[in-house]
Amino acid sequence: MLKNDYLGQDCSVARALEVVGERWTLLIVRELLRRPRRFLELKRLTGVAPNILTTRLERMAEMGIVESSAVSDKRDWVEYRLTPKGRDLFPVVNALMAWGDRYAAPSGPPVVVGHKCGHPAGHRLVCQCCGEELRTEDLHIMKGPIPR
Amino acid sequence: MLKNDYLGQDCSVARALEVVGERWTLLIVRELLRRPRRFLELKRLTGVAPNILTTRLERMAEMGIVESSAVSDKRDWVEYRLTPKGRDLFPVVNALMAWGDRYAAPSGPPVVVGHKCGHPAGHRLVCQCCGEELRTEDLHIMKGPIPR
Repeated sequence: MLKNDYLGQDCSVARALEVVGERWTLLIVRELLRRPRRFLELKRLTGVAPNILTTRLERMAEMGIVESSAVSDKRDWVEYRLTPKGRDLFPVVNALMAWGDRYAAPSGPPVVVGHKCGHPAGHRLVCQCCGEELRTEDLHIMKGPIPR
Repeated sequence: MLKNDYLGQDCSVARALEVVGERWTLLIVRELLRRPRRFLELKRLTGVAPNILTTRLERMAEMGIVESSAVSDKRDWVEYRLTPKGRDLFPVVNALMAWGDRYAAPSGPPVVVGHKCGHPAGHRLVCQCCGEELRTEDLHIMKGPIPR
């Protein structure tokens, strides 16, 4: 566990990474964002070793990110899906995809996310207040916590 | 290394995680997004053990995420800063912060990012084409690569 003092790690980034800061976790989330999957599908799609996949899915269930349900009486026909808390990781996966598309995809983006408007959704992050695109040079840190 | 076939891992998320899929890396990026830092400051602010921090910074320099320069003749007065490639990780850190604020900050967000417009920037992700806020249910996968 990380230390829990302010200058150290009373930080939502650190706390989020406590839950998802492991490569396989976000690759599993990536697959489940598309649709629910069975164990063997997840194994094939992510390339994760079965023992690691089992451990990860258990941990993700404990953290409330995935849930599973039997889709048949056959023993291993269990389907895994994201909870709302898990689906809310979409912006993290989307931001990683944007960065990877830019810096680690020499042949162009392997996959593009389309929006219902009929065009690629892209990765546009804007100020919730004025709507302007966020650039790091326009941002500053305001210490919290702020009242909800 | 991950396998490099399509269904497996010819995926920008996987490739991004090859570079930043390690908790300390993104915590170091988080600190350097604020401003350049010296080694001992980074150690204090992230809580990373010195040997791990050294290895991480070397790796991040190799990957073109950080660069360093001497700010004094004294041996350890070297300052680390993000390159443009490193600063482009801001949306990843921002998305992790949003998720952590929502699900792992019982006392409210420890830190708020302010925009130059004078208000909190928030974490609003919109379609680059129609400007509507992105919701996972409105998205679909279009396979790439698409021409640049």
